[in-house]
Amino acid sequence: MILKNDLLLRAANGEKVERIPVWLMRQAGRILPEYRQVRASLSGFKELVETPEKAAEVTIQPVDILGVDAAIIFSDILVVAEGMGLTYEMEEKKGPYFPKTIENLKDIENLRIGKADTDFAYTIEAIKITKKALDGRVPLIGFAGAPFTLLCYMVEGGGSKTFSKSKKLLFSEPEAAHKLLQKITDSTIDYLKGQVEAGADLIQVFDSWAGILSPQAYEVFSIPYLKQICEAIDSVPVTLFSKGAFFARKTMSSLPCSAIGIDWNMDPIESRKIIGNGKTLQGNLDPCVLYGSEKFIEEETNSMIKAFGSQRYIANLGHGVYPDTDPQKVKRFVETVQSFDVRSITT
Amino acid sequence: MILKNDLLLRAANGEKVERIPVWLMRQAGRILPEYRQVRASLSGFKELVETPEKAAEVTIQPVDILGVDAAIIFSDILVVAEGMGLTYEMEEKKGPYFPKTIENLKDIENLRIGKADTDFAYTIEAIKITKKALDGRVPLIGFAGAPFTLLCYMVEGGGSKTFSKSKKLLFSEPEAAHKLLQKITDSTIDYLKGQVEAGADLIQVFDSWAGILSPQAYEVFSIPYLKQICEAIDSVPVTLFSKGAFFARKTMSSLPCSAIGIDWNMDPIESRKIIGNGKTLQGNLDPCVLYGSEKFIEEETNSMIKAFGSQRYIANLGHGVYPDTDPQKVKRFVETVQSFDVRSITT
Repeated sequence: MILKNDLLLRAANGEKVERIPVWLMRQAGRILPEYRQVRASLSGFKELVETPEKAAEVTIQPVDILGVDAAIIFSDILVVAEGMGLTYEMEEKKGPYFPKTIENLKDIENLRIGKADTDFAYTIEAIKITKKALDGRVPLIGFAGAPFTLLCYMVEGGGSKTFSKSKKLLFSEPEAAHKLLQKITDSTIDYLKGQVEAGADLIQVFDSWAGILSPQAYEVFSIPYLKQICEAIDSVPVTLFSKGAFFARKTMSSLPCSAIGIDWNMDPIESRKIIGNGKTLQGNLDPCVLYGSEKFIEEETNSMIKAFGSQRYIANLGHGVYPDTDPQKVKRFVETVQSFDVRSITT
Repeated sequence: MILKNDLLLRAANGEKVERIPVWLMRQAGRILPEYRQVRASLSGFKELVETPEKAAEVTIQPVDILGVDAAIIFSDILVVAEGMGLTYEMEEKKGPYFPKTIENLKDIENLRIGKADTDFAYTIEAIKITKKALDGRVPLIGFAGAPFTLLCYMVEGGGSKTFSKSKKLLFSEPEAAHKLLQKITDSTIDYLKGQVEAGADLIQVFDSWAGILSPQAYEVFSIPYLKQICEAIDSVPVTLFSKGAFFARKTMSSLPCSAIGIDWNMDPIESRKIIGNGKTLQGNLDPCVLYGSEKFIEEETNSMIKAFGSQRYIANLGHGVYPDTDPQKVKRFVETVQSFDVRSITT
């Protein structure tokens, strides 16, 4: 199917664009009343993730309502762990968590390699339905968590202030840690290949906890697995978003990915200098800017674009949109990007 | 009083040292059974902070037990807010929090400027007692939170995943935010001057939440207040530790401080290049390394020192030591630094 709006893919591939593409991390769900309505009709978040028709419906909402240039499949990064045999639960306010965590080598050996067509069938199906319903209006983004971030969740059981359980595993039992990372990587590759076969036009990998590691530890415990994923997904562009890993920008620029997401801590001009011209950059407005006035949002968005330039660039936030953000403010952000005159800046 | 061990001060001042000084953030309290014994004899953390003899006792424990090259006064960064009229509470497991938070301009106007000799008298007294008891064995470090970090706590009520309330204030009511930051700064300067008069040999300012801001926002909402503090405290060395603010290293190198603390995300060699030779660097072992084997701790510590060099350097962790760390492992870290032969490396 030919896409009517392929700005995102052209930007990711380094082709010339006449307008800057924009989407928001976590746009599917969270901020829209229309999303909350769908969710209220079900038992909760998890049922929504596992009901393909409904997941497809909330995936498309931001395209209709906010006018973004891409859809991202509604799901959660923890589904990979569940597909490996570690069930997660979702609690309102608290977020997702694992009642049983990975504590030792035996727990790791007990995990299976998750497979797209059985363990992740609901997401694969949701992608097929979404692609059909989108009818080529915008590209569909598929995604997964990075193996290192998944390891953190599986070991901690949820978020953490210090991630000391995860790091204790890395530093005191590195072989067990690598075994777990490889199993997650194998599951993730099968899952992402299934997403691409089902119709995902671009894949984003979220390394949400990258920022808790030292540069050296990141090279050992995350980069090799990101590399395997990039090498395995070779038919669509891959975007890597390693939140907080400012120190890994140089290394990441040598991975076979198309785009690199950066958070709002990282300066766009400096990031371009470190990463070079071989990758598309994505980001990086502080989600909290959307709490400001419309005028403030316009100013900050325009100054962000001027720093990134108009080519090899995908506008986005530097992190997922926060749930209490006014959708009207999100629209102002999207429209400010879309009305930016790319001829007004040289690059 | 002449110090018998002034390695820390000489390193901070850029004078030559024959051995690298070492201490740990949060060494006073947290990890030692001897600390927990003292604390158990009181109603809790807050009573300990406010009882000068006991605060002095736990301040000195790490010098006796771990053999570190400095003591840091036992207190909490939230005492400044309390001195301004905003009472904090301490709950086991949850940590310190404010039952009443700052919500609007009126709340900010209601705050007073805290004064060393009245509002912070217990810490000032604890410093005097500690100095006497230390009898010149090692220098005593005084400290305070950075105004921006204090603002975050006072607005959020405690820690936060997104700090969206604080950033909402910065981005939607910047004038109110600056009014609050100035009041905190004025209180902090009075408090720190009192600490120096009472005997503190060096002052460290902790900007624990620096990493949640963009480079631009940090320049606006934190740097000017750090500068005021550095300028006001001119008779002893000042160390600035802005956790997560890798992007501010260049700017911070131009502030009138003696030393800059860096966390484990920041590469020592790159940091030295960015900051230049005009400042002492402090840091930066990942606290989780202390969960590893003694051999692993030795290897990581030695490789850290080699990256920093032996001069203009204070060895430390890149963050406070975690409460569940084995004191024996901490000792291994301290001894590894202290037995490092500074003549074995050129700088």
